[in-house]
Amino acid sequence: MFYIIGLGLCDEKDITMRGLEAIKTASRVYLEAYTSILMVQKDRLESFYGKEVIVADRDLVECGSDEILKDADKEDVCLLVVGDPFGATTHTDILLRARHLGIPTRVIHNASIMNAVGASGLQLYNFGQTVSLVFFTETWKPDSFYDRIKENAERGLHTLLLLDIKVKEQSEENLARGRKIYEPPRYMTIRQAVTQLLEIEALREEGVLSADKTLAVAMGRVGGLNDQRILAGPLSSFLRAPPDAFGPPLHSLIIVGRKLHHLEVEYGEVFAEALGEAIALSETQVDGPTSDQIGEKGRQEGKQKWREIASKVYGVALD
Amino acid sequence: MFYIIGLGLCDEKDITMRGLEAIKTASRVYLEAYTSILMVQKDRLESFYGKEVIVADRDLVECGSDEILKDADKEDVCLLVVGDPFGATTHTDILLRARHLGIPTRVIHNASIMNAVGASGLQLYNFGQTVSLVFFTETWKPDSFYDRIKENAERGLHTLLLLDIKVKEQSEENLARGRKIYEPPRYMTIRQAVTQLLEIEALREEGVLSADKTLAVAMGRVGGLNDQRILAGPLSSFLRAPPDAFGPPLHSLIIVGRKLHHLEVEYGEVFAEALGEAIALSETQVDGPTSDQIGEKGRQEGKQKWREIASKVYGVALD
Repeated sequence: MFYIIGLGLCDEKDITMRGLEAIKTASRVYLEAYTSILMVQKDRLESFYGKEVIVADRDLVECGSDEILKDADKEDVCLLVVGDPFGATTHTDILLRARHLGIPTRVIHNASIMNAVGASGLQLYNFGQTVSLVFFTETWKPDSFYDRIKENAERGLHTLLLLDIKVKEQSEENLARGRKIYEPPRYMTIRQAVTQLLEIEALREEGVLSADKTLAVAMGRVGGLNDQRILAGPLSSFLRAPPDAFGPPLHSLIIVGRKLHHLEVEYGEVFAEALGEAIALSETQVDGPTSDQIGEKGRQEGKQKWREIASKVYGVALD
Repeated sequence: MFYIIGLGLCDEKDITMRGLEAIKTASRVYLEAYTSILMVQKDRLESFYGKEVIVADRDLVECGSDEILKDADKEDVCLLVVGDPFGATTHTDILLRARHLGIPTRVIHNASIMNAVGASGLQLYNFGQTVSLVFFTETWKPDSFYDRIKENAERGLHTLLLLDIKVKEQSEENLARGRKIYEPPRYMTIRQAVTQLLEIEALREEGVLSADKTLAVAMGRVGGLNDQRILAGPLSSFLRAPPDAFGPPLHSLIIVGRKLHHLEVEYGEVFAEALGEAIALSETQVDGPTSDQIGEKGRQEGKQKWREIASKVYGVALD
């Protein structure tokens, strides 16, 4: 049997009992290490499972799937993926390949950003299509994401933006010379994402996004035990917050749609307070008891701004 | 600490290690028993966890949340929910209530239909807003779902339809007389769902849905160990299939959008074969070796119809 097992959002303990059982009986265990980031290291997984884990990079999963699937008709082989197995196209590929080889397959599901985004308090029913945001370069600024956000916004729907990840990328020079030297991993930050969004809005001028009137929710390491961050406010506020406010990657960003419910606004208040506090503390360099007052003032401002835009721009009836 | 823990899709083994750890340390463990169906019984959970599980019905979660939250500032209390904690509005309510009471909270995520729908092979990025389909009555046939499917269809997006569940409902008479007598649970079947869809299409005539030209994927017990069912074909085929083809509830239905990729078509072929086989075997009552041939013929027909519509109606380039 070929198992493809979701590891969930955060660390080795997010695996399901069913997934863990499959790993225990497997002859070989691969860990897919490129479509997402691992917050947990290979050696922690190995000591938790009590068996060797083989790291499978892009080359292996995309071009060497027959090596992964070898003998899976006679013994159990597991491929572990961060989140849920159906987050990335490549997993459909390997399942199709297994099917063609006559190998029985089983998928063990887990949480992924696609449903854990509910931690924002925004109703999952009211999300439109999900959009990927890629790193702009000097010469390449693809803006099709803008049309998708617009399509969602016209329906009043929220948009989940998945921010770009560059892992094991080669520089053009190294690629041309066939040198397997890789650049350090890069993860798009909330600030980069918001900057790119506003850059395209300034070019297209279709009024889909507004620095001061479009609400957004930034999420870092959703499901993380101690490092989950959720912050909320108008787009411009994210540019004022210090980079460390969002914690370590991965980050995602939600553009809030017009179908906003007063319970969603109420639930988001603490996230707006957190953003307000981060901004206030970074903009006024004071320590000691005064910083508590500044933080509290920032929280109140963040919450007030969040509620004001929800009420005046989004038209949500708040008491 | 108040924990709200997702149980995942199927049975007691779909819980994460993190969730299980929280349950082990908790003073009280509640099981929410109404927003979704449990495929697993309370007693199986109790023997798996080695502790008592208190069933929390709608009254308790919605009106008696203070009872659930009692002492959660001093000890650990868990509320277990099927799927992920952010599948239903009521969980936002109880988390807000905990926040007001100054009780620390933690959410432990898991898979839910909102991301496990990827098991259909349809890309999650290309799903629009999710739609709930409620049971029609003689006098009440709400059709707003039709507008939402239309909005998605105009963007070429897939639509996930969540089918209605009636658990612990009272008849009008019992409700009026204040008698706590409940009707047996009802779950909308795929056939009922398709019938309701086509009934509204016949009334509205906006061409959003077509019995023979709209492709759909039916899913039963996604993530279920032995009882997961996925079947695919044009809407009319689902009306020809015998009811048991879809297995026991819960069922969901996906309306396939125009942004269909050839890999999605290829991945769905086995599901189209399964539907074709179920139809062929139910429409010709023959046993023995002949039934194998009939089944195989049905599979080929199902696959052919699926590919033909994908190619001719959806415009997918297939080889």
